[in-house]
Parts: sequence; structure tokens; C-alpha cells
Amino acid sequence: MAKPKLRIGLIGTGFMGKAHVFGFASAPRVFELPLKIELRTLADVNADAAAQAARRLGFAHSTAHWRDIIADPEIDLVDITAPNALHKEMALAAIAAGKHVYCEKPLAPLARDALEMTEAAEAKGIKTQVGFNYLCNPMLGLARDMILAGELGEIRGYRGLHAEDYMADAKGAFTFRHDPAGGGALADIGSHALATAEYLCGPITRVMGDCVTMIKQRPDGKGGSQAVEVDDLGRAFLRFENGATGSIEGNWIATGRKMQHDFEIYGTRGALAFSQEHFNVLHFFSTDDAKGRQGFRRIEAGPDHAPYGLFCVAAGHQLGFNDLKAIEVAGFVQAIAGKSQENFNFRKGLRIQTLVETIQASSRDQCWKSVT
Amino acid sequence: MAKPKLRIGLIGTGFMGKAHVFGFASAPRVFELPLKIELRTLADVNADAAAQAARRLGFAHSTAHWRDIIADPEIDLVDITAPNALHKEMALAAIAAGKHVYCEKPLAPLARDALEMTEAAEAKGIKTQVGFNYLCNPMLGLARDMILAGELGEIRGYRGLHAEDYMADAKGAFTFRHDPAGGGALADIGSHALATAEYLCGPITRVMGDCVTMIKQRPDGKGGSQAVEVDDLGRAFLRFENGATGSIEGNWIATGRKMQHDFEIYGTRGALAFSQEHFNVLHFFSTDDAKGRQGFRRIEAGPDHAPYGLFCVAAGHQLGFNDLKAIEVAGFVQAIAGKSQENFNFRKGLRIQTLVETIQASSRDQCWKSVT
Amino acid sequence: MAKPKLRIGLIGTGFMGKAHVFGFASAPRVFELPLKIELRTLADVNADAAAQAARRLGFAHSTAHWRDIIADPEIDLVDITAPNALHKEMALAAIAAGKHVYCEKPLAPLARDALEMTEAAEAKGIKTQVGFNYLCNPMLGLARDMILAGELGEIRGYRGLHAEDYMADAKGAFTFRHDPAGGGALADIGSHALATAEYLCGPITRVMGDCVTMIKQRPDGKGGSQAVEVDDLGRAFLRFENGATGSIEGNWIATGRKMQHDFEIYGTRGALAFSQEHFNVLHFFSTDDAKGRQGFRRIEAGPDHAPYGLFCVAAGHQLGFNDLKAIEVAGFVQAIAGKSQENFNFRKGLRIQTLVETIQASSRDQCWKSVT
Amino acid sequence: MAKPKLRIGLIGTGFMGKAHVFGFASAPRVFELPLKIELRTLADVNADAAAQAARRLGFAHSTAHWRDIIADPEIDLVDITAPNALHKEMALAAIAAGKHVYCEKPLAPLARDALEMTEAAEAKGIKTQVGFNYLCNPMLGLARDMILAGELGEIRGYRGLHAEDYMADAKGAFTFRHDPAGGGALADIGSHALATAEYLCGPITRVMGDCVTMIKQRPDGKGGSQAVEVDDLGRAFLRFENGATGSIEGNWIATGRKMQHDFEIYGTRGALAFSQEHFNVLHFFSTDDAKGRQGFRRIEAGPDHAPYGLFCVAAGHQLGFNDLKAIEVAGFVQAIAGKSQENFNFRKGLRIQTLVETIQASSRDQCWKSVT
Repeated sequence: MAKPKLRIGLIGTGFMGKAHVFGFASAPRVFELPLKIELRTLADVNADAAAQAARRLGFAHSTAHWRDIIADPEIDLVDITAPNALHKEMALAAIAAGKHVYCEKPLAPLARDALEMTEAAEAKGIKTQVGFNYLCNPMLGLARDMILAGELGEIRGYRGLHAEDYMADAKGAFTFRHDPAGGGALADIGSHALATAEYLCGPITRVMGDCVTMIKQRPDGKGGSQAVEVDDLGRAFLRFENGATGSIEGNWIATGRKMQHDFEIYGTRGALAFSQEHFNVLHFFSTDDAKGRQGFRRIEAGPDHAPYGLFCVAAGHQLGFNDLKAIEVAGFVQAIAGKSQENFNFRKGLRIQTLVETIQASSRDQCWKSVT
Repeated sequence: MAKPKLRIGLIGTGFMGKAHVFGFASAPRVFELPLKIELRTLADVNADAAAQAARRLGFAHSTAHWRDIIADPEIDLVDITAPNALHKEMALAAIAAGKHVYCEKPLAPLARDALEMTEAAEAKGIKTQVGFNYLCNPMLGLARDMILAGELGEIRGYRGLHAEDYMADAKGAFTFRHDPAGGGALADIGSHALATAEYLCGPITRVMGDCVTMIKQRPDGKGGSQAVEVDDLGRAFLRFENGATGSIEGNWIATGRKMQHDFEIYGTRGALAFSQEHFNVLHFFSTDDAKGRQGFRRIEAGPDHAPYGLFCVAAGHQLGFNDLKAIEVAGFVQAIAGKSQENFNFRKGLRIQTLVETIQASSRDQCWKSVT
Repeated sequence: MAKPKLRIGLIGTGFMGKAHVFGFASAPRVFELPLKIELRTLADVNADAAAQAARRLGFAHSTAHWRDIIADPEIDLVDITAPNALHKEMALAAIAAGKHVYCEKPLAPLARDALEMTEAAEAKGIKTQVGFNYLCNPMLGLARDMILAGELGEIRGYRGLHAEDYMADAKGAFTFRHDPAGGGALADIGSHALATAEYLCGPITRVMGDCVTMIKQRPDGKGGSQAVEVDDLGRAFLRFENGATGSIEGNWIATGRKMQHDFEIYGTRGALAFSQEHFNVLHFFSTDDAKGRQGFRRIEAGPDHAPYGLFCVAAGHQLGFNDLKAIEVAGFVQAIAGKSQENFNFRKGLRIQTLVETIQASSRDQCWKSVT
Repeated sequence: MAKPKLRIGLIGTGFMGKAHVFGFASAPRVFELPLKIELRTLADVNADAAAQAARRLGFAHSTAHWRDIIADPEIDLVDITAPNALHKEMALAAIAAGKHVYCEKPLAPLARDALEMTEAAEAKGIKTQVGFNYLCNPMLGLARDMILAGELGEIRGYRGLHAEDYMADAKGAFTFRHDPAGGGALADIGSHALATAEYLCGPITRVMGDCVTMIKQRPDGKGGSQAVEVDDLGRAFLRFENGATGSIEGNWIATGRKMQHDFEIYGTRGALAFSQEHFNVLHFFSTDDAKGRQGFRRIEAGPDHAPYGLFCVAAGHQLGFNDLKAIEVAGFVQAIAGKSQENFNFRKGLRIQTLVETIQASSRDQCWKSVT
């Protein structure tokens, strides 16, 4: 019996669009998916670019008008990798058309927009997903499983980080990422640190923020310069519902750092340490180990850490960034077929947005804020 | 204008078969390939397995008879991931039929068979490739470029290693890998260490081998046990044509090690250190650095190290094992289209086989041997 | 000509007392000191312990009364390693007697006491030192030199840490370190993180604190339990006079961590990363390095990094904790002889105390505080 | 009751002499030694240098004639840190005078001389020690204890290394270390790798050597150049009495390496990995750990690993190179007092010398040799 189809319309041909296609192409070869993915239409404002990318990436059709995708009854899932400012309009249109929606992060520049999108999706009963791919790492799943199983005991302290240097050069031009509506290091990459923190330790209840703009002017690309208002680094103290406390930092001017998405978690029985710089490894300390033999243990991702074994035959081979996208896609396809929960749906995307805005508000008002 | 097609017939549905399909599916989305890959037929001795895998992996047809692939004029490339003992017969048949051949390593259990295959391929003028995927790592390309550019000065010393623990358990059953014809740790994984050594430092001229069997009996799977003759670890001293000396070790009983494919290279001006355990990183020491500021520099793979940038937008995202397969496939497709050299053809596969056998003979005879 | 003598009276025979003696014994053999150190009297409340330790550690005399040391005109320097609560009384007595004072950190439980001690010492013109030994590490000196020389450009971000797990066990008894007067993780070990931050980046001007008590009851050693009020972890956001911003954390319940005295500093031209876990190493990233060759450089302590070369003949040998004490002692002896500045005098100890209290106050009041 | 004295006469004021004095000064403060060490006489061919060093290092007397030390009935132990070529004459004289002898490694340039020294010492019944300080590391003691306790199971494979770059510069002048009588990388630093190998895995029974001279001419310091015959790197395959096999390398032209005294040991139940670059750490892999939780565990030196706790109060503080010398001295003093075995006596020094010469002979003759 042939599997039901899942026909994809993708908006955007940039890096993230390509990464999503990689996921769509790879997921069915790696996982036993309940639906057959079909790459139907690729949209880009530039018709030629759309046509060329469609040919290269394996889409049957292309268009310069994203609304063609919405209007097409042969499309089941709309995948949005267009600029952040367009996410809301596109997603609402897709939801209204009853299509499942896969949207790159951030869901929308502002939490109130993300809320509108989330409520529309829930009202319509369609499936949604936001692209928080770092959470698809089997070693993060392992960390979460270990915490839930009590292998660390009661969690006490958390330290999270997402630092890169891609905005460290003050001569780098002003872009949409520097736009006050939703931009800044905290929103852009600190959001990953927040997503990981809640994924592992559960809800954050209160925050105290510290958002700082270090590069106050950037070239406007026309020979002049433009004032920057968004933060270059955003820090926060955290309180978790489970009683733990912690901190995170999002930083895009961390000279020399390319992917310092790190965390350390301290519990009463053990601890975990992780760096995305070596994301096939999780370090685990257990107070159960014998005296004189204790130490952080370097666990390498392997077939014991599902779904790693579907990708590689043995530990040591290692997953790459694009493999995480395949895991993300597979989770969403399974959710659409009703075989599992949505991994990271709009409501969770909204949640991260809310955390970001609460931290920003806390920083502005210089006081602790509850996360509502 | 439509691209010419490259129609694939794949023999084997195991881990490596799946990895190759991953490469075929991924390469065209990542690279601008001159040919359009089409997955035509998948062969497996088990007809049901073949049919099921074909459906899952995206092949149009399946068969229980690999000779169907040879006989099919609609197939351009035969990809062999069947057990080592069958490589020769399959490859010779494919070559005779004028098809390009992609064969998993080792080319054949014995160098004399590999020679026959190589000569047949060269006589017929078809393109060949052997799967030495570790060499497709951009950081190994970087290492080689640095060496060729003289950034290390004159090379003096080399230390190579490929150690795993997948045969460390003496209760693990006797398999084809323990068969005297071509088996053993040196042939199986030491071959990777040898391939990397020659890739970086050029031809090896003389060797002194030390091959050791530590686990002398293994369960035969029928309640009894079977004597093992092949080596569990194989070491060699090396002489290179460029005047350098070195050593390698292949070891499949290295308890705790999953992918210790490591090397260190020492030159008059600098040094490199690498471990496959973190294969998106290359460590570089330069005597040109200022006094008091010298040290091994941890270079992370990024867009400066082609073709990394085709996979990921920035350093830190990292490639995985399967991405290396995509690079391997892309190189072969470009070679078939005449756009580049074969990356690692049968003659080079034969070369590694010859090195392995020379080391084994040296170990047996307990004296140095020239590599012919 | 014989060197003038520097006659030592030491109060305390615990671990720190022993470490100081190690420094006194080692410093003159490593450095060309202008004074001849003589271990004169060792004081401990337990006369037998004092006598025994004096014999073992090489003191000529011992006493059960620390005031004997103050009263002895043959003593030039009083070294205080007694419990924190006694520092003030002892130091003031020594100062009044015109003796130089070497005091373990913290100078006193409260900044107002530290101020009194500092002003007394300055009024009397004697030399003082507080034991912030981590700052005596040649690699921290290197870091500071690099920053002052502009090798990192303008400093933008700082992340500091001092985490251990020695209070992680909730069954560990209540001690003087849990006493509200000056106790807690921030005061005890976060103070090291603060000292390093100012040593490297200059004055901190504003702080926002977050001090948390996770273990609220500890055994009182008599079968009951005692409420704990001091923090188990203290965090702070920081503003520096030079325009940089940063954060620090002091944490004594960081399960598995033994000496995570770490920092990262990001500047416009480069970055530094350090961990006390490998304190003979400093990691340096420079944007001046060639494209495609950039990366954090692992600089190993060596003779280029004074005074390392006085201890070991070559890089790689490595200093230990006790060697840092020797460097600390040597600096103080040279200052006493007028050959150099005091390394870390009472005023600087007071400064750290002030920072700690400002952070604690900020945490209590939940708002930013200026450091006065 | 006063302890009996152990009066020291030291020959040599170079780096090693200073390191020994450091040990003599530090050991009694750290350990409860059964003898009271007294630094009596320091000898150096240069009378002024001797006098100055004696004053600085704390010796009561100095002399320009080492035979004064031999002749002095008030000296119990002769410590030889003079050039290698003089070791034999000095040691034989000291032995004849009935003094205990502490001699820097190598015992003598040639094994036959070391044998003569060893037999003389044994005939006279005096105590001897050779300075293999790396073995005094508590983490090496831990490794050995773990192996003896069976925590690794049966040992199968060993990989040892001692690589530095201090002879990497071809413009470095010819020195006594390049002299054919006993010089070369294998003798100089490969000897450490051999000492560690036997310390951990027991007797080596057979070897196959590969000694290579890469820098064939060095400046003679008079404007000309001198031919070098000794090896710049020496490698060996090894067979151990316990059935294990292994390899070592000594390399003094390993550009960028300062102290790569590393080993990995693989057993049937576990493995150890160590690098002197971080010598307060031992990495331990155990197959007893739970599935999915296995990994190399980073054990940090602490009070559980005697005698670390005598130096530092807690893990994380770390020992330095000079502390290893203190441990070495303490062991010897205890042996002299009859409280323990000699740690590493002349017979063991002879053993290493024999291993070195057997490997050199094997390399020359290009065949395996038994170690007699």
C-alpha cells in the first residue's frame, strides 16, 4: 500500500531553505516515515532564482509569488524560510488555507505576533513547527533523559551560552538583524540558549536581564552610518519552576567563537557539561562513581543514543548540522501523521519569544520580571 | 538544457549502501553537479529486502540478482557495497560492461585481485572510485594544502593512527573480517591510516611491520570456537619518498576508542595535529608566530575551507560523517563528467592494498620491506 | 655582605599556613631575594600542635599565644592564616607594632573592618599583602600584558567564573564559612573571580547581583541542623570603567568541578580563554592571523613568561599551586625591601571585599549598584 | 628525640641541581621524613659559582673540587647532577666511600658503565636512586594501582611517547647530547617513555627499533659544522612479559611539542590515557559503566591519590614539576632510613639503559632483539 503523500511548498531559497530541503531529502532515507514527502513548489521573489533552485533542489514547480503556494490545493505543508518580518503574514495565510506550517525561528519579531500565529494555528488544528534544530541533537535528548530519570538528582544550577563572533566586526553593515523589531543578539542566538535551558530544566519563571549595545553605529551600505539600538550581548539570571537557578548569555560579538552553544547543569547527584563545538559529545559527572575514580566522562554519541544509529553504524562517525535538520523534519512528519507529538510547535516558539521580550524588558527597567 | 543523466545501480543494502545513497541524494543538492543522478536499481540477494530498501531509498527498481544491474544498458554506474569477497567478480563484470565503478574499500581482499581490477578498468577507460571517505574531509584538504604550500617547511616526522574498539570483546563472533584473505585490523582500519599518511606526505617507500593477534579464538556462532589468524593490531615504521619517517597503527581492540583516526605531522616550520574524534578541527603550530605567543592553533572548519561552505553557512555548524560521503560522491560525478580527476581511484585503492600486504609480509618475515 | 633579615612570625598551622611556609622556603631558592627570610615563630592555640609544626616546618620557636609574635621585637613580618574572624584583631595588633602584615584572604569578613585595617596599615606605612595567589600565575600576567599592549584591541566582554563542589553535599556540616558575617560562595571563591576580573580589565563600576542559597539547612554537628543564610552561588553582571561589560559567578555547589576558575575576554582584535584546571595554558585568538588559519592558540607557560623560567628550564614542565605561593611571597619580600610595588595589598583586598558586599546588597535590593 | 641527620653533598649547580635542592627543601615540609636533611656542601668546578649557589640554595659549604665531597665523612649522600660523562667516576667514588648516591638520569652513557655502577652499589649495600621524576606523579601511581588491581582487565596494547621540540632547530649547536656515547633522542627522552612503559606494564622482553637522524649537521660553535650521528627520533615495537604488545617513540624534533609524555593502555576491561601536558589528570574508560553512559572519565588528581593530599588541600590545585622532585626525594630518604623500597634505584636505571641500547642495536641490525 502506498504511503499518503506530504506535499511541500517552500518559501525562500537562502541558506535555511537549502538546509530544510536537505532535511526533507534526507529524513525519508534515514527514518521510516509514515508519509511520502514530495517537493512540489519553491517560491522566491526572483523568478529565475526560484526556477534554478527548484531544478537543483528537486522541486517540481517554482514561482515568484508565495501566495501561489498558499492557493495550491496540492500542497499540504508550507515551509517558511523567508525574512523574519514576513513570517506572520505567510503563516497566517497558510493556516487559513488549512496547511501545516513549518517556520524558521524566530516565529515572528514580536511575541504578540507569535501569539496571534499560535492561536490561529491551534484554532485551525493544523500542525506547526519552529526550527530549533540544536534541540534535535541526540546528546541533548540524552541529557534530558538523564535529568528526567534523576541521574543528576535534583537540579540546582544552570549555565547556558550561545556566543558567536559573526557581528564582532564593527565595519559589518547594518542588516535586518539590527532592526529594533525583534533583532539583537539575545533574540537571534540567545534564543537558542533559552530554548535549550527550558528543554533541559523546564519552565523559567523569573528573569533579570542585561542587554548591551557595544557597537552603536554600523555602515548603512550607502557610505553613511546608521545607529544600532539592539543588543550585541544579552545576559539573564534565571529562576526555574523546579527550584533551580541559572544564567544564560547570547553574544554575537564574541571574537573567535563560532558556535559556543554550551551549557553546564549541576544537580545533587551529578552534572552535565556540553559544547556545541563538539556536539557529538556529552560530559557526565556522577557522584555514584567510586571514590578516587570520579571525573567528567566523555560520552560519545552512538547507536545507544537514538536516533543516532539511523545515521551512522557506530559511535565516532558523528552527525553534522544538516543531520539535525533531518531529525527535525522527521519529527514534524511523524507529528503530522499523528504518530508523535510536535517537537517544537508554535506555542513553544511563542514561549521563547516571550522569554526574550521579558528579558529585554527586565534589562530596560533594571528589575526582575516574572515570565507570564 | 537538461543535464545528462548518471543512472545508478547499487549492489548491497547494508550500512554502507545506505551511506552511499545518502551521498547520491545529498551531493546534487549541495554541489552544482554536471550530471543528473538517477537511482535506478537496487540489488540484494534477498528480493524482499531489495524491494523494501529500494522503496525507502528511492530506487525505481529492485532485483535479487546483481547481474541484472550489469546487464541493464540504462545503468551508467555500478556501486558495489557487497561483502569484500565479491568485489572483484562484480567489478570485473561491470567494467566489462563499460560501466563506471564505485567500490567500497577494500578494493579486494588481496592486492593481486585489486591489480587485476585496476588494470581492467584502465584498459577499458572507465572511471573508478574507492570509498576512502575520511580523505574527503575539508580539514584534511586544508592540511594537504598547507603542506604543499610549505607552511610546515620540510616534513620530518609523521604519526598516524586508526584505533577503534569494535573487536575488543573476545566474545564477539568470528566474521568475514577475521578471514585470513584480507582481514585483520591493519587491512580493515589501518588502511585508513595509510591512506591518510600518503594523502598528506606522499609515497611511502619502505616499511617495517608488526602485526599481532591478541584474541586467538572467537565463537563460531554454533556453540564452538574458531581460530583467528588475522591481526588485532598492526603497526608499521615508515619511510617516505620526501625523506620523512613515521609510524602508523591500526587497532580494532583499543578499548574505549571509537574513531581515533589521528595524525601528527612535524615539519621544520610547523606542525599539524588532528583527531577524527573532532574532525571539524585542525590544530596548527607555526614557528612563525611571535615568541611567547606560539602554540597549537585550533582551526575550526568554515567557509574558508572548501567545500565546507556549500554545506553550512558558517564555521561552527560542522559536517558529519554522511556529509563526507556526499563530497566523495560529488568528486566522482565530476570526474565521470570529465570536470576533474578521480579522487581516489582503483589504482590508489590498489596502492593501499599493496601497502597493507607489504606491512603484513614485513611483520611475518621480521624485516624491512620496500614498497613496490 | 650579608643580606638584611626578614624574620617571620606565622599564626596558624592549617593548610594555608603550610602553603605559606612552602612559599617562604621556596621563594629564596627560586628568586634572588633582597632579604634573607628566617622562620622565627609559629603560633597555634594548641601548644603541642604549634611545637610539632614548628619543628616540621622549620621554625625556631613556637607558642600558643599569637600575641607573643606581636610582642617579639625580633619579628619583622606577621603572617596571618588564622580563621577569618580573627584577621582584624591580629592585623591591627601587628600594624600597631610596626610589623609588615601578610594576611590570607578575605582580609576581614566585612568591608568596614577591611577598611579599618587598610587605613591603619597605610597610616603606619607598613607593607601589606593579601593572598590572592591565582593572580601570581605567569599566564595571568601574560594575559594582562597582552591586554595592556592592545593585542586584544578594545575590550568588550568578560565572562568569569570560580566554581567548585566542595559544599555540594547537603550533609556537609555547618562551618564558619556558612556564617552570615562574610561567608558564602561569592565571598569565599567568587572573590577570586572578581579579583581576576579587575586584574585583567580594570575597575568595575557597577554591578547587579544574584546570590542564592540552595542548601538551606546543614547539620550542626550535634545531631541537629542549622539554618544557612549565606549564598551557595553568587552571580553578577558587571560594568567596567573601560566600557566593557561582563559577568562573574562564584559557586561552591558545582558538582564535579574542582577548580573552574575560568575566564573569557573578548576584544575587538582578539580574545583570551583560560581555565585554572589547566593553569599553565592560555588560549589566544587573534584576528590578525591569516584567513582560514585563525583559531584559538594554546600557549603553554614557558621561560618567555616570567617568572616561569626561574622554576623550570623549559615549557611543558609546569608550575603547581605551591609555586604560585612562592611567587606571591617573592613579590611581597621585594616590596618590603622597596624593590617593587606590593602585589596585592590591603587596599586591594578591601576593594574585593567592597565588590562582594556591593553585589550582595544589589542582590538583596534587586537593583544595580555603583561600586564606591 | 632528634631525628638522625642525612647530610647532602651536591655536585652541579645547573637546572637539575637546583631542582634537586628544591626537592630536598620541600620534601621535609610536605612529608614526615624519618631523617633530617642537611644541605652540607655544594660542588662546582667554578669556585665562585659554587660559593654563590651555596649561599642562595642554603648549603653550609662550597667547593670547586667534587672529591672534597667524597672525602668528607660528614656527608651521607652524594647527589650527582654533573654532565653524564662524569656520572660513573663520581658515583664509583661515592660508593667506595660508603655514601648513598642519587644520580640524575641517565645513570651513564653506556649500559656497561651503568652495570659497573650498579654492581658496585649493590656490593657495598648503599642506597641508590636515579631521577626518573615523571614516575613520581600520583596519577602514574594511580594508573599502576588500577592496572595491578585488575581495573583494566588483562593488558593488551600500549602506546607510549615522549616528544619535545627542543632540538627541532637545525641551527641549534652541537652539544654533549649529540655525542655518540649515549646521546640521542631515544636515550635522552625516549628513556622516559620506556621507564613509564615498564612502570605500568612490567618487563619488556623483545624490541624492534627504528632510530633516525634527521638533522645530520649542526653548528660546532666555531663557525663550522659537525656531523651528528645520534638519533633525532627513536621508535620501537615492544613485547611485554605479560603478553601485551606496544610501541614507544622518543622524539626531540617534534615541532610545537613541549612535553608530550603520553601513553594509552588498552585492557580487556578498560583503558587509560594520559598526557604529561596535563599531568594532574588521568583518563579512564571502563567497560563496567552502563550502556550509553560509557566514556573516558577525566579523573583530576586529589587527596584520594596519595601523596597529592600532602601538597594541596583539594583536587584542582595541582602539582607542578618541582613537586614531583619532592616526592622523588622523599621516597629516597625513606628508603635510606629503611622505611620503604628504593623507588628507582641504579638497577632500574641500568635496565632503562639496557632497553635503550637494545633498541639502538635492533635499529642498526634491522631485526628484533631480546632484552637481556
